[in-house]
Amino acid sequence: MKRTSTNQTIIIPGFKFSGVSAGIKKHGGKDLALVFSENTAVVRGVFTKNKIKAAPVKLDIARIRRSGKGQAIIINSGNANACTGNRGLKDASDMAAKTAGVLGIPSGHVYVSSTGVIGRYLPMQKIRKAIPGAARKLSPGSIKEAASAIMTTDTFPKIFSRKIKIGKKTGTIAGIAKGAGMICPDMATMLCFIFTDIDAEPKALESSLKQAVKKSFNRLIIDNDMSTNDTVLIMTNGQLKNSPIKKNSARYHKFENALTEAAYALSRMIAKDGEGATKLIEVLVRGARTEADAEKAAKAVANSMLVKTAVYGKSPNWGRIMAALGHSGAYIKEDKINIHVNNARLVNKGTGTLKKSKNLFSKKEIIIKVNLGLGKKDAKALTCDLTEGYIKINAGYVT
Amino acid sequence: MKRTSTNQTIIIPGFKFSGVSAGIKKHGGKDLALVFSENTAVVRGVFTKNKIKAAPVKLDIARIRRSGKGQAIIINSGNANACTGNRGLKDASDMAAKTAGVLGIPSGHVYVSSTGVIGRYLPMQKIRKAIPGAARKLSPGSIKEAASAIMTTDTFPKIFSRKIKIGKKTGTIAGIAKGAGMICPDMATMLCFIFTDIDAEPKALESSLKQAVKKSFNRLIIDNDMSTNDTVLIMTNGQLKNSPIKKNSARYHKFENALTEAAYALSRMIAKDGEGATKLIEVLVRGARTEADAEKAAKAVANSMLVKTAVYGKSPNWGRIMAALGHSGAYIKEDKINIHVNNARLVNKGTGTLKKSKNLFSKKEIIIKVNLGLGKKDAKALTCDLTEGYIKINAGYVT
Repeated sequence: MKRTSTNQTIIIPGFKFSGVSAGIKKHGGKDLALVFSENTAVVRGVFTKNKIKAAPVKLDIARIRRSGKGQAIIINSGNANACTGNRGLKDASDMAAKTAGVLGIPSGHVYVSSTGVIGRYLPMQKIRKAIPGAARKLSPGSIKEAASAIMTTDTFPKIFSRKIKIGKKTGTIAGIAKGAGMICPDMATMLCFIFTDIDAEPKALESSLKQAVKKSFNRLIIDNDMSTNDTVLIMTNGQLKNSPIKKNSARYHKFENALTEAAYALSRMIAKDGEGATKLIEVLVRGARTEADAEKAAKAVANSMLVKTAVYGKSPNWGRIMAALGHSGAYIKEDKINIHVNNARLVNKGTGTLKKSKNLFSKKEIIIKVNLGLGKKDAKALTCDLTEGYIKINAGYVT
Repeated sequence: MKRTSTNQTIIIPGFKFSGVSAGIKKHGGKDLALVFSENTAVVRGVFTKNKIKAAPVKLDIARIRRSGKGQAIIINSGNANACTGNRGLKDASDMAAKTAGVLGIPSGHVYVSSTGVIGRYLPMQKIRKAIPGAARKLSPGSIKEAASAIMTTDTFPKIFSRKIKIGKKTGTIAGIAKGAGMICPDMATMLCFIFTDIDAEPKALESSLKQAVKKSFNRLIIDNDMSTNDTVLIMTNGQLKNSPIKKNSARYHKFENALTEAAYALSRMIAKDGEGATKLIEVLVRGARTEADAEKAAKAVANSMLVKTAVYGKSPNWGRIMAALGHSGAYIKEDKINIHVNNARLVNKGTGTLKKSKNLFSKKEIIIKVNLGLGKKDAKALTCDLTEGYIKINAGYVT
């Protein structure tokens, strides 16, 4: 299992990428990404559960339902195309049609994503004008350009790639993502696009993606607001020519694990780059009676503004962790709980143990390990600390 | 229906109050409050749903179950007596016993509340020493002293009082409360104590209190963390000598409304005084299909860190309100939603309408009115803006 760092060129056989500046973002910079697969790929997605869904989300859901096939994704940052009514839907569809025209593929094979301000119409003229240039720049080694073009308040592009042995062949799973923090001036979005050359039956692709998202993006909490645009898309073009992965086969579990690893790694980058964040916080809960309990407990700790401000303030307020566990809805027993932070014991059987802990929270990555002492199930959650920086960004007086 | 401002002396027939300094708080100030009823009162309570409950909460729950009668409440600030194991339980019980001894009443008739740091034992010597002085200072006109002694990071004491006609007699409902924000250095608590001379059957008292709390404190959101100590207690001594209020009678509804008004007014003061808050935010949702939908929608908006930071930043980000409604779990239709802020229309049928809105959020009290356009049910929620002040207080580097 080899991982590729973002400094090496990442190639996924049969995929090409580009990222250009279309002038959508107020202050310039890349804001239009294009992904192209040489052959028709199988596409599956997981989307925001927010009842108010952006136009591109509606379009993608419809296309996956209709054919689930695709050959390109066109993504803009700087404008979410959400709360834009019928005109928004038409704009998303026009974006796909224009891309399809330039690439010479069916319009129904183009997927669309948008992220940025809500309630404003897309600058379609600018987008239409920029698409041909994005198509011209498509190249197998340009995944980083695409990752940069989907950024909003992100401070670094988020890319992950790994190889995976499928029988005697070696396939690639790679992905790009953008930040989860809700973003100035309105709100933003978690977008993630995963590409692979490994052939998988559509059902296997769908269920493994759902599992991967459940254990990664769905356990990533920045501010508990759910965007209108959240999207995770996966494309497989099958160029590895392996015998297609079947659901619940041995290879399926290997594939699902690799996909989960990719999704978790991208989630971790997003948490690290949360708005205003100075620290990554990873919450590991074990010893739960059920997986649902473990997940509830981990998410409650990661979602506690008090825990997040305590970590920021480097104060070892274990009582806040206990209180979060207490209102998590998970089955717990106060006197069974043990808590470690970065391997220092903080709580033993429900009461505080640490006397000197000044430097406990001084690291950049804070791992909170909770053992509920009641069973064998575990779960992880990811978040970041809550700082004045978050307030400044979201109060809208810093851009 | 007359209301008494906090500048007038508030008298509830048969009740006496005091507030003294026992030396529990690090930086001095009043930290021990005593409430005494001349005759045995009926006591009911609503408590935190956090599975980790502070020792005094456990004691009060047990006493209400056992007899539901009481004659005194002893409350300390500066220490929550939570996560303190068996010693904490003994301390709470000793606090009650000492108070009972000094007042010459049965120990089981004394209730206990604590608020402040968790995980530390109460300084019992200081508390025992201070109780006789608190008893000596008991006076019918000293409710403000008691309200001050239960404060932690609160910036003003919270008192509400109103008269209510019961037949030809005029009764009083009065209450004191302390802040809901989670508080430095660990976490804090919402405490509220309501006193009345109106006689009510215990069942009527219990159900009206539950209703009042549901529509006030349970819709008050500062940071969505639930304290280990949250407590609302009501005492009625029946000195009005009215025929006891029966559940579901006409008088019952009048009583319940008055109680709800008192609880809501105290909740509003708490929201206004949220940690670091510069603005009160009141969310009124109407036009919902069910009351549960209205409540979910109102709470989701009040709980959105994005809405709260937008209000702080005075930016009219109606998209954030829409997104919060979308993930609230309430049944909504995007194109039916109308939103007003302080009577200016912000959203009409799901799309933004306001062009110039610079001063929209400049007031101290922000009323967000949402009409879901689907039915006749409504609900309110209360919160405050989210500011750097909150972070500073809770990161623990400002006291």
